[in-house]
Amino acid sequence: MIGYQFMGKAHSHAYRDLPFFFDLNYQPVQQAIAGRNEQAVKVAADKMGYASYETDWRKLIERDDIDLIDIVTPNNTHTEMAIAALEAGKHVLCEKPIALSLLDAERMLEAAKKSGAVHMVSHNYRFAPAVQFAKKLINEGRLGKIYHVRAQYLQDFVMDPSFPLVWRLKKEVTGSGALGDIGAHIIDLARFLVGEIREVNGMLETFIKERPSGEMSGGLSSTTSEAEQMGEVTVDDAAIFMSRFENGALGTFEATRFAGGNRNGNRFEINGEKGSIRWDLENMNNLEVFFADDEEGLQGFRTINVTEESHPYMSNYWPAGHIIGYEHTFLNLFSELMKGIEKGYSPEPNFEDGAKNQAVLEAIQLSAESRQWVDIKHLREETRKKL
Amino acid sequence: MIGYQFMGKAHSHAYRDLPFFFDLNYQPVQQAIAGRNEQAVKVAADKMGYASYETDWRKLIERDDIDLIDIVTPNNTHTEMAIAALEAGKHVLCEKPIALSLLDAERMLEAAKKSGAVHMVSHNYRFAPAVQFAKKLINEGRLGKIYHVRAQYLQDFVMDPSFPLVWRLKKEVTGSGALGDIGAHIIDLARFLVGEIREVNGMLETFIKERPSGEMSGGLSSTTSEAEQMGEVTVDDAAIFMSRFENGALGTFEATRFAGGNRNGNRFEINGEKGSIRWDLENMNNLEVFFADDEEGLQGFRTINVTEESHPYMSNYWPAGHIIGYEHTFLNLFSELMKGIEKGYSPEPNFEDGAKNQAVLEAIQLSAESRQWVDIKHLREETRKKL
Amino acid sequence: MIGYQFMGKAHSHAYRDLPFFFDLNYQPVQQAIAGRNEQAVKVAADKMGYASYETDWRKLIERDDIDLIDIVTPNNTHTEMAIAALEAGKHVLCEKPIALSLLDAERMLEAAKKSGAVHMVSHNYRFAPAVQFAKKLINEGRLGKIYHVRAQYLQDFVMDPSFPLVWRLKKEVTGSGALGDIGAHIIDLARFLVGEIREVNGMLETFIKERPSGEMSGGLSSTTSEAEQMGEVTVDDAAIFMSRFENGALGTFEATRFAGGNRNGNRFEINGEKGSIRWDLENMNNLEVFFADDEEGLQGFRTINVTEESHPYMSNYWPAGHIIGYEHTFLNLFSELMKGIEKGYSPEPNFEDGAKNQAVLEAIQLSAESRQWVDIKHLREETRKKL
Amino acid sequence: MIGYQFMGKAHSHAYRDLPFFFDLNYQPVQQAIAGRNEQAVKVAADKMGYASYETDWRKLIERDDIDLIDIVTPNNTHTEMAIAALEAGKHVLCEKPIALSLLDAERMLEAAKKSGAVHMVSHNYRFAPAVQFAKKLINEGRLGKIYHVRAQYLQDFVMDPSFPLVWRLKKEVTGSGALGDIGAHIIDLARFLVGEIREVNGMLETFIKERPSGEMSGGLSSTTSEAEQMGEVTVDDAAIFMSRFENGALGTFEATRFAGGNRNGNRFEINGEKGSIRWDLENMNNLEVFFADDEEGLQGFRTINVTEESHPYMSNYWPAGHIIGYEHTFLNLFSELMKGIEKGYSPEPNFEDGAKNQAVLEAIQLSAESRQWVDIKHLREETRKKL
Repeated sequence: MIGYQFMGKAHSHAYRDLPFFFDLNYQPVQQAIAGRNEQAVKVAADKMGYASYETDWRKLIERDDIDLIDIVTPNNTHTEMAIAALEAGKHVLCEKPIALSLLDAERMLEAAKKSGAVHMVSHNYRFAPAVQFAKKLINEGRLGKIYHVRAQYLQDFVMDPSFPLVWRLKKEVTGSGALGDIGAHIIDLARFLVGEIREVNGMLETFIKERPSGEMSGGLSSTTSEAEQMGEVTVDDAAIFMSRFENGALGTFEATRFAGGNRNGNRFEINGEKGSIRWDLENMNNLEVFFADDEEGLQGFRTINVTEESHPYMSNYWPAGHIIGYEHTFLNLFSELMKGIEKGYSPEPNFEDGAKNQAVLEAIQLSAESRQWVDIKHLREETRKKL
Repeated sequence: MIGYQFMGKAHSHAYRDLPFFFDLNYQPVQQAIAGRNEQAVKVAADKMGYASYETDWRKLIERDDIDLIDIVTPNNTHTEMAIAALEAGKHVLCEKPIALSLLDAERMLEAAKKSGAVHMVSHNYRFAPAVQFAKKLINEGRLGKIYHVRAQYLQDFVMDPSFPLVWRLKKEVTGSGALGDIGAHIIDLARFLVGEIREVNGMLETFIKERPSGEMSGGLSSTTSEAEQMGEVTVDDAAIFMSRFENGALGTFEATRFAGGNRNGNRFEINGEKGSIRWDLENMNNLEVFFADDEEGLQGFRTINVTEESHPYMSNYWPAGHIIGYEHTFLNLFSELMKGIEKGYSPEPNFEDGAKNQAVLEAIQLSAESRQWVDIKHLREETRKKL
Repeated sequence: MIGYQFMGKAHSHAYRDLPFFFDLNYQPVQQAIAGRNEQAVKVAADKMGYASYETDWRKLIERDDIDLIDIVTPNNTHTEMAIAALEAGKHVLCEKPIALSLLDAERMLEAAKKSGAVHMVSHNYRFAPAVQFAKKLINEGRLGKIYHVRAQYLQDFVMDPSFPLVWRLKKEVTGSGALGDIGAHIIDLARFLVGEIREVNGMLETFIKERPSGEMSGGLSSTTSEAEQMGEVTVDDAAIFMSRFENGALGTFEATRFAGGNRNGNRFEINGEKGSIRWDLENMNNLEVFFADDEEGLQGFRTINVTEESHPYMSNYWPAGHIIGYEHTFLNLFSELMKGIEKGYSPEPNFEDGAKNQAVLEAIQLSAESRQWVDIKHLREETRKKL
Repeated sequence: MIGYQFMGKAHSHAYRDLPFFFDLNYQPVQQAIAGRNEQAVKVAADKMGYASYETDWRKLIERDDIDLIDIVTPNNTHTEMAIAALEAGKHVLCEKPIALSLLDAERMLEAAKKSGAVHMVSHNYRFAPAVQFAKKLINEGRLGKIYHVRAQYLQDFVMDPSFPLVWRLKKEVTGSGALGDIGAHIIDLARFLVGEIREVNGMLETFIKERPSGEMSGGLSSTTSEAEQMGEVTVDDAAIFMSRFENGALGTFEATRFAGGNRNGNRFEINGEKGSIRWDLENMNNLEVFFADDEEGLQGFRTINVTEESHPYMSNYWPAGHIIGYEHTFLNLFSELMKGIEKGYSPEPNFEDGAKNQAVLEAIQLSAESRQWVDIKHLREETRKKL
C-alpha cells in the first residue's frame, strides 16, 4: 500500500479483517507500506500490520513479493503510480478519483488494458449491502423504467472559515473539491444503479475563498498554523449539476461541504415506473423501498433493515438486525478484488468505470466554465484522440 | 353544549364544520350553550356560533328545541348532567372519562339503557383515519392472533413546578390525573383495536406534590397567582400498568405528563402473528404496517400516508397526501353520532364502552393501592351489585 | 368566488372556518359563487355555504354586494378575470400560477397597481406555521448567510399511463405541467425564505406522451373514457432546474408527478453559515433545525413540533402537540388577506410576487428550450417593454 | 475462549480487531479456544485466529500461557467454568446472563472477590458510543432528576411455529427465554444509566408452547428435523415488567421475541426533570436528546450522530459521520477489560453487576409466579444467606 492516512487506515483495516469474515481462496497478506516520512510510515506499518515499509513507492513496485499495489495517496500521484505498477505487472487498486484529468484517467485505462493485471477503483459505497440490494431490485426490473435520480452528498466539515488549507482544498493536488471528493461517489452510485450519463450541466462554487495556510495534514482535519497566513482555496466547496441518462432518466445532483448538520449525508432517491428506492449513508443499513403494485391503501415506503442472511454480503457478518458500519463497505469491496485476482478478471468498478467517472467530473467542470451542456461520450472521444 | 373551554371549542368547531365535509341526513344545529359565568358564556356563544346561551345547564335540558346534550365540563359534573339529560329524553355525548367512579359510570349506563336515547363518549382518537384503518386490518385478520400491545400517552405540559394547581390536578374535580385524562384514551384505543382487558396491575405516581394554587383556568394552562400559596396535587402525574387481554395478548401501558419533549405523544404498537402496526398521534396521518408474509428480504415497516380516497373518512376531505389534523377526529366522530341519531342507535364508543373504560381506570387505581392484580369483569360485577 | 373544484372547496372552507379561529375586524361573507354549469354551481353554493350563485363570472363582478373576487378556475382564465375584477375596483385573490405567460402576469400586475385594490396570490404553503417560523429564524439571522437551497415537490398521481388527459395536462389550459402546478409552490417558498433568484437553467420532460382523452374532471382525478381515444400530453411531467440567487446562494429544484410513493412531498432544505432547516409538507407541523453554534457533541437537527402557542398562527388553534392540517394553510393566508382589506394594503404574496414567480417559470421554460441559462431580471425587463 | 458460536465469533473478532483501533499497553493474544467437538473447534480456531485449541475447557484453565478465560458457552455452564477459572487465578469475562439462578450468580461473585482476578460481564450494549454519551449527559446532570425509563427489546426471530427447539428455548440450558437473553440487556442499560432497581412486578408468557425438537444449533437458527417430533418450550417468549428505581423513577420494560418486524429493536427513552434521551440499537450511532431549557419555540429532540471525535470511543475509529456497527460495542468493552487487566481492577459491568442483574431477572420470575411485587435488595439478602 502506498499512503497511510484516513484511506490508508480504512484499507489496511479491511485487509486485516477480511479473512475473519470471508472464506476466500485468495487472501491478502500485508507485505509492505510506503510513505515518504520514514518515522511516520514505520509507525503506520507497525500499527496497521505491515511486515515491512518503504520510503520510496517505486521500491514497492520493484519488489517480487508484492502482487497488489493499493494507491491511497493524494490524487495528483495516482496516475504515475498506477501506470508504473501496471507496467510492472502488478494488480492495482486505486482510490477515487483516479486522476486529475480525464486524459490521465484514459492513460491509466490504457495501461490497465495492456498489462492484463487486475485493476479496480475504490468506490466503496457501491458495496454497502443496501446499495447492492437496490441494484438487485433494479436489475430484476422491480422498479421498471427509471424516471428520476436525485442524489446528494452533503458534508459540513470545512464550513468554519478557520479550517485550514489542507491538500483537499488545493487544485494542483486534488483536481477538484467537493466535486471529485464526494461528487465522484454519487456519480458512481448513479452509474452503478441507473446506467451511463449522456450529458451534464453544472455549477461550481467556492464560498470561502481564502483560508489559513497551515501545514498540510491528513486532508480531513488540521490545526491552524500560528501565523495567520492566508492562502487561496482553488477548488469548489460545492458542485451541483443536472443530467440526462442514456436511458432517458433525469438526474439532479449536489455535492457540497457546506450543508451544516450533514456530517456525511450521502443519499439518493430513485423513482421508476413500478417503484422507488431511497438510501442514506448515515443510516446505511436501511433501504426504503416503494412498490406501486402493492395493494391499494397499503402502499408506502418500506424501511428494510438490509441485514438479513439473504441480503448481499450479510451472511458473512451477524444475525439479522445487527448492523454493520462504514468500514465493512471496504471489506465487501476487497472480497470482490480478491476473487478477481484469484480468477483473473477486473471486478467493477474498474479503471473503465474510473475513466467514465472522470469523464463526468471533467464534463461538469467544463459546463461550469462554459455554462453549456456537455456530452459525455463526445468528451471521451475527443480526449482519447490525444492519447 | 354544556361547557366552553378547550373541549368546548373542539366540539363546537366540529359541529360547525361537519356539514361542509359530510353529506348527512341529520345535521347539527348549534342551538345553545350553557356556562355559569354569563359574560364568558355569552362571548363563547357568539364566537362559537350558538344561537342562544343559558347560565344554568338545567335550563338547556328543559328546552324543547334541543335534542342533543354535549357535556364538555370537568369530570365531576358528568354523571349528574348526563343522567338528567337522559331522563329528559335527550341524546347525550359525554367527554371522557365519563365519571369519577365506576359506580357512577354504571349508573349513567343504566340511565342510558332506560332512556332509549342515543349516547356516545367522546373518545375522538378512535376516529383518526389511521386508527380506523388499523382496526380494519385487524378485523380482516391481517395481523392474525394478537400477541402484544404497547401504548404510551406522553405529555410534558405540567413538568414545570410553577405550573399551577388547575382543576385537572384536583382529585375531587377530575377523579384521577394522567390516568383518566390521557390513560383513558390509550385504554380506549387498545379496547377498540384488540378487545377487552381481563386484568391489570399498575402504579401511580405524583412527582410534584405541591403547586401554586392560583385561580382555576381551562385545565391546560393558567397564570400563577401572585401570592405564592401552595396547594396539594391530589392526582397522579403518571400511571403505568401491565395488562392481560381476554384474547391472551399482553399489554404495557404508560400515561404521563412528565415525559419531556413529548408534547402529545399518543402512540401504540401492536404485534400479531402475521403483522404489526404502529401509530403516533404527533404524526397522526401515518400508519406503519409490517406484514410477516411479505417477500423475504423485502420485509419492513411500510409508512402509509393514510390520506387516500379509499382510507376511512378521507374521501370527505382532500386529495391524497393533503393531511388532516387533530380537529378532524371530532368531525369523524360527530358524523357517526349524527348517523346514530338519524337511525336510532348508539354508535361505539357509547356508554357501555364508557363504563368498561372506567372499570379499567378504577382497577388500575385499586391495583396501585393494593399492589395486586385486579380482575376487570369481577370488579364490574361487584360494582353493579351496588346499583 | 369563481370556480368550485378542489381549490374552490379549499377556499370556501377557509372562508367559512376563518371567523371561528381568528378574531378579525374584517370578516368574510360568502355572498356568491360562479360557475358555468348551473346545476353543479347550485349544488356547490348550497354545499359550501354561498348565499347565491351566478353562471357568468362577469355578473359577479358587476354586483355591488361583492368586494372580493376569488379566482380558483383553470389557469387560462385567470388573466381576463383578474383584470376585469380589478378594473371594477374589486379586491382579488388569484390561484397560482396567476397566468399562462409572464406578459399576462405583468399585465395583471399593472392592472392591480392602477386599481388600488388589494391583490394576493394563493401560495398557501407559505402560511404553514413551520414555514413562517423558518422565515422568522432566517430573518433573525439564525442561519447566517445562506449557501444552499434544495427543494423538491414530488407527487405521483399521474404515473399510471391510463390516467386521463385532464386539464392539468393540457398546455392551452394550464400553461405548464408539474412546473407551474407544483414547481410554482417551491419557487414561492424559496423566494419567500431566501430571496430573489438571479438566473436559472432547467430541463422539462414528458414521460408519458399520450393519454386517454376522456372528459375533463377536476384536474386531479377522473375516470377513463370508455372509448380508448388517445390525446397528446402537451405539458411537462417533470421539471428540474438549477439556480443562482441574488444573494449568492445555489439552488437545486425538482418538481415532478413521477416520483412513486411521494403523494405530496413538498420538501426543502436550506443550509446557511450558522444553521440549517428542513421541512416536508407530508409532515407539515414539524420543522427540523440545526444550529452550528450548539455545544460541541450536542449538535444535531432538532425536530420541532411547530404547534406551540408562541409559533406563528398557532395561538388561534389548539394546545401544543395538537396538529393542524393542509386546510389551515388557507385559513392563515385568508387571515392576512382580511387584514389587508381592512387596512388597505396587499399582503405578500401579492401580484408583484405572482409576476416574479411567473418570470422564473417562464425562464425555466425558455432555458429548457434554449439549453442556456436565463437571467430573470433581464427577462422581466424585456417582457415589460411589451406591455 | 470457551465456546465458538455467535458470541464466540463476536468476541474473537473483537480480540483480533482491538489492537488496530486502540493503543493499549495490554493487548490480547488469542492463545486457545475450547469446544467439545474437535473437528468444529479446530475449524473455529483456524478461522478465528487462535494459536491452539482444547476439547476440554478444564485444560484451558490449567494452561500457564493463558491469563484470561472468556466464557461464551450456553448459560448453564457459566457458573462452573467461571468459578474454576477464578479459583485458578485467571481473569474472567463471562457472557450474560452469568448464571441460571441468583444463588449461582452470588457464588460466582464470591469466587471473584476471593480470587483478586479481574472479572467482567459481556453487556456489550453499554459500550455503544451513544449509550456512553447518554451516561455522560446523565452524570453531568443534564437530564436532572430522572422520572421515567421505558425500555424495550423487541425481536421476532422465533415467531414462526416451525422454528425449532434450540437451546435458547430450553430452561435447563438457558434459565429463561426472552427475559434472560434480551431482557438482561435492557436491565443492564437501565441500571447503568439510571441506577439500581428497588422492586419489580412482571409477567412471562410462552405463546408457542411446542416446537419441532431438531438437533440443537447455535441458538439463533437451525434447520428443522426431518421427523416432526415436537418438544415443549420451557422458557418465556416474552417478559414484561414494571419497576421502581431506588431514586424514585418509574420503569416499564418489555422483552419479547414476538414483535414482528423488529429484528433487533433494543430501544429506550429516559425522561428527566431537565431533558430526555432516546436510543434504538437498530440505529445505534444516533442519540436523540431533548433539553427543557432550550429556547422557547426551538425545543425539540435533537438527532445527534454520535460519531464526533469528542464522543466516547469514536476517536479510535473514523471521521464524523462514518458509522460503526454492532461488533464495535465489543471492541469498546474489550478495551476497558484490557485496561482493567493492565491496572488490576474489574471494570463495570463486573460480577457485582452480574449478580445485581441476575437478582432482577430472578425477581421478575418470582413476581410472575406469585403475581406480587418483589423487592430486589431483600431477595439478594435472602439468597446470600444460602451461600
